[in-house]
Amino acid sequence: MRDEIAAARISGHDDSVRVFNFSAGPAQLPLPVLEQAASELTSWGGSGMSILEVSHRGADFVACAADAEATLRRLLSVPDNYRVLFLQGGASAQFAGIPLNLTAPGDTVAYLNTGQWSAKAIKQAGAYELDVVVPADEAASSYTTTPEPGSFTVPEAARYLHYTPNETIGGVEFDYVPEAGDVPLVADFSSTILSRPIDVSRYGLIYAGAQKNMGPSGLAVVIVREDLLGRARPVTPTILDYQKMADADSMLNTPPTFAIYLLGLIGHWLEDGGGLEAMAERNRAKAKLLYGFIDSSDFYTNPVQERSRSWMNVPFTLADPARDADFLAGAQAAGLTNLKGHRSVGGMRASIYNAMPIEGVRALIDYMTDFAARA
Amino acid sequence: MRDEIAAARISGHDDSVRVFNFSAGPAQLPLPVLEQAASELTSWGGSGMSILEVSHRGADFVACAADAEATLRRLLSVPDNYRVLFLQGGASAQFAGIPLNLTAPGDTVAYLNTGQWSAKAIKQAGAYELDVVVPADEAASSYTTTPEPGSFTVPEAARYLHYTPNETIGGVEFDYVPEAGDVPLVADFSSTILSRPIDVSRYGLIYAGAQKNMGPSGLAVVIVREDLLGRARPVTPTILDYQKMADADSMLNTPPTFAIYLLGLIGHWLEDGGGLEAMAERNRAKAKLLYGFIDSSDFYTNPVQERSRSWMNVPFTLADPARDADFLAGAQAAGLTNLKGHRSVGGMRASIYNAMPIEGVRALIDYMTDFAARA
Repeated sequence: MRDEIAAARISGHDDSVRVFNFSAGPAQLPLPVLEQAASELTSWGGSGMSILEVSHRGADFVACAADAEATLRRLLSVPDNYRVLFLQGGASAQFAGIPLNLTAPGDTVAYLNTGQWSAKAIKQAGAYELDVVVPADEAASSYTTTPEPGSFTVPEAARYLHYTPNETIGGVEFDYVPEAGDVPLVADFSSTILSRPIDVSRYGLIYAGAQKNMGPSGLAVVIVREDLLGRARPVTPTILDYQKMADADSMLNTPPTFAIYLLGLIGHWLEDGGGLEAMAERNRAKAKLLYGFIDSSDFYTNPVQERSRSWMNVPFTLADPARDADFLAGAQAAGLTNLKGHRSVGGMRASIYNAMPIEGVRALIDYMTDFAARA
Repeated sequence: MRDEIAAARISGHDDSVRVFNFSAGPAQLPLPVLEQAASELTSWGGSGMSILEVSHRGADFVACAADAEATLRRLLSVPDNYRVLFLQGGASAQFAGIPLNLTAPGDTVAYLNTGQWSAKAIKQAGAYELDVVVPADEAASSYTTTPEPGSFTVPEAARYLHYTPNETIGGVEFDYVPEAGDVPLVADFSSTILSRPIDVSRYGLIYAGAQKNMGPSGLAVVIVREDLLGRARPVTPTILDYQKMADADSMLNTPPTFAIYLLGLIGHWLEDGGGLEAMAERNRAKAKLLYGFIDSSDFYTNPVQERSRSWMNVPFTLADPARDADFLAGAQAAGLTNLKGHRSVGGMRASIYNAMPIEGVRALIDYMTDFAARA
């Protein structure tokens, strides 16, 4: 059976053997997108130039970027009073960009702490002379929970409430949108954006690094309500000034053109597959299958509170941690890659983003079954 | 002859027709590099994963990034007491990163102003409560000159002297390294890095966006002397903190992995071609040929002072500007693309970076000769 898995092809389009790649990010991408990019990498659209070689100010690339934005807007039903920005520096750059754009020294801001990414955002906010309030902190559960709805109070004076809908490392996900009253909600959607619909109108700002569900690393998307623009502090680096970037259609300087092109291709792949409702169904089914298997097993354990389990990142441990290395080596040999857990957590982690087909989850479960039986 | 040019292939490796692309950036890349990237875009090194899909913390990518850095160090003979950082946000992000990392409020800094990129760097420095001194300003010549060597004085108290060795828009280039005494020299090498050797030891810090000679957009390289690290202001976004990035081997967060991979491939292409001395010879020959033709013509003019003419960006005007559109349309039809001058300058601009072969320059001159004869 291992040979069968090792030879599994995600698509019949390609002659090369592809593996099932459970990397947390950069992560598996849709094969048709990679194939299209490869096929036109020396001559994009018959231009005699690679997409890597064209001017970002040329009509062809401007149209490509506009199409990527329009497709993203359709997929997420982004309201007209929101701007979509294509930035650099990952979500981490926005840990600084958000306080720099939305606050003045002395302001109050609120952050929910549900894991390592929340904690990094909180730490960066500490650099900006703010009163940083943390209404809920899940560190006591070793980040295996999200706060109970209604269990925390957001200061009315807060300039925003920041939270992380999905923590990539802990595999912990909010199953609700936090209530913040009139305080704008700001959310780091890096690991769940495009995995299902989002009601953008409930947020003041959402942002995400592209390298899980939207494309390669090197691109961050910010979707911000227009009334929040125009307040950047003077020390804000120009490339992080949301108003200036909005005014320049994200081309204040040279944008990461290849990543924007791939975002557009991935958007079309999603639309061809039925959009985000259909993707949500597939992702829900994949997660249900994997958690169901883990819960039915005596050998594998997932530590996360049931209602807060991530659809995208599934950490699990073996009954005997001494066998971790064997597990990983066997998985690799079976064409199931990047299953090692985050270095801070240990154990295993299967990231099952949009591009992971349910066949990949089934192959993983087959391998896990086989491995446990031999234990 | 036009058909011949239109059908010109830069290499015999590929079946698709390639054009000669004179874009100022993103710019033409070496075809063998594009072909290799295309050939392994669905399975990198037989891994069953694209380079776009692998974890930046996996051993394979860490080795890839280390190789890209080592190759860059060999090519530029970077001394051991310099750190090489792979950052995001383009050179423009470093317009902020440099004052944030190298100064405190109230410090004096010096900038030479030789064009629009210098001016942008100066403007950004203005956000950081600095005494910004401009010892030489070439605006009066409409940025067609560089200052005479020895004609300006750098304040001894300056934390650094910043200059732009080559201005991409004006096509103006320093033919010498400015003398700054004990003041660290900081230089934006975006449009000339890797086009010839650089004596890195004369600089405190050099930086460059990748999208001319080093790869695609989305990657910026900073090469900084170690004694300048560790002084970042508290408000510095973490991803722009040179010390923190150096400590994390540029992987404080997810780096632009594909761009780093391409930088490595381009570095090997340069080494295979004889390194930077050999590349300098080729670039010198290309520039000499094109300027020689322009100077011998009554129809075409380059406005730049002779000793300050860029090897990389060659702006020129027609005797009759009413014919600009005809010139560009004919060039496009002849497979010579992106020759339109910067929107702020008008006329034409031919950017002839490393990946432009001398055959491209010859084809351009043939077309220009033909066009002038018909004028």
